[in-house]
Amino acid sequence: MTAHKNEISPAIILVNPQMGENIGAAARAMLNFGLTDLRLVNPRDGWPSASATANAAGALEKMPPVPVYTKTATALEECHYIYATTARRRDMIKPVFTPSTATEDMHERRAAGQNIAVLFGAERSGLDNDDIALSHAIITVPVNPDFSSLNLGQSVLLLAYEWHRQKEQAPVPQAIREESEKNTPVSHAHLLELFERLETELEAHHFFRTGGHKPIMIRNLRNLLTRAEMTDQEARTFHGIISALTGKKTL
Amino acid sequence: MTAHKNEISPAIILVNPQMGENIGAAARAMLNFGLTDLRLVNPRDGWPSASATANAAGALEKMPPVPVYTKTATALEECHYIYATTARRRDMIKPVFTPSTATEDMHERRAAGQNIAVLFGAERSGLDNDDIALSHAIITVPVNPDFSSLNLGQSVLLLAYEWHRQKEQAPVPQAIREESEKNTPVSHAHLLELFERLETELEAHHFFRTGGHKPIMIRNLRNLLTRAEMTDQEARTFHGIISALTGKKTL
Repeated sequence: MTAHKNEISPAIILVNPQMGENIGAAARAMLNFGLTDLRLVNPRDGWPSASATANAAGALEKMPPVPVYTKTATALEECHYIYATTARRRDMIKPVFTPSTATEDMHERRAAGQNIAVLFGAERSGLDNDDIALSHAIITVPVNPDFSSLNLGQSVLLLAYEWHRQKEQAPVPQAIREESEKNTPVSHAHLLELFERLETELEAHHFFRTGGHKPIMIRNLRNLLTRAEMTDQEARTFHGIISALTGKKTL
Repeated sequence: MTAHKNEISPAIILVNPQMGENIGAAARAMLNFGLTDLRLVNPRDGWPSASATANAAGALEKMPPVPVYTKTATALEECHYIYATTARRRDMIKPVFTPSTATEDMHERRAAGQNIAVLFGAERSGLDNDDIALSHAIITVPVNPDFSSLNLGQSVLLLAYEWHRQKEQAPVPQAIREESEKNTPVSHAHLLELFERLETELEAHHFFRTGGHKPIMIRNLRNLLTRAEMTDQEARTFHGIISALTGKKTL
């Protein structure tokens, strides 16, 4: 759960990538601009991958081993702030960044000691809405409206390039964080614990009456609570509220 | 010689590209960011190319036909300002830009009505020094010094991305140019005419005494005169100087 904690660059997380070639191209793009924290969720053709190695131009050998997860949430456990890359508009209320404004935001968050991650979806279909619901913000590359055809490796390249380009004018990281734990943003693992407890209680209290809508209702709830950018302390307070309302002190 | 004169985007010129795949990837990268003026100099495997079409994701069909030249100078004829992309340091005195600062400069030149072009060399070897000598400035992508491995398509992508990113804050093009022709920068075709006339005269006057050094001496001369960024009027003055010194009025 604290893996990668000391990484100073954002984690690049490829969710359901299909072609090893594209994973290799992403690794090559990353290392050109100094990013080394690559993580995979359910790569279709397994891992390690000969075609990824062939397309990485030596980058994978120079990077730490690439961890593979079966769930996006697990890949995100120690992260505090998550960006989802999408090409299409989604019906979710989240801040929308370009690669340039997103990396500005990233540098500020890194300087404040936050662990950040960027999710990239499968080649054809992109991220599914449940993964986007776990994210705080959306990144969309502004492209030619008449020809919008960036592949996975190209999208990773543009993000890595912007990270590196803005590195020099980025704020200096604070060596010692003065703030108490109260102001620490909640980690994704703790947030997920809260989501799951809340959803279990809601289920037990027949909140999800019209069965078919449950997945959408959960997604909307997660979107809303993610958007709140809770601190660790606030997440504990929220647990207290659930305990109070249900009379169960399960945390 | 006036082809592309009305193009408002920079020309992307691939010199001696080897793989059709990379030409296709360059076209795809360009059109995503609204660039459509692609030109080729001596593509190794000929043109049109099935592998280029396959890798362009439909971009080539949507772009104007790609002209093919046998000499870089011919591809540049109507251009006023030329950028050479290189990964390695060269021993030439020219301004060195990043993609970001280069596109700032490009937008200013475009707004002033200049035709601009960016040269990209062959996959492995890059541009040769004679092509760089024809260029006014150099573009180098600042990459990880421990892993510098951008391919042709990726390099074109970063440049096209920066062009598009900076488009909105770019100066508004002047609808009517007020300046007289005196201030128009010389076109590459006229500059080349001047070079060739000067070199012919120097040859006739036994300037290149030590035969083996002639190509290097010519390259140095061209570097120097390109750096001067002559206006059309100044190029004519220079012709006048040659006529005066040689007693031949060949222009």
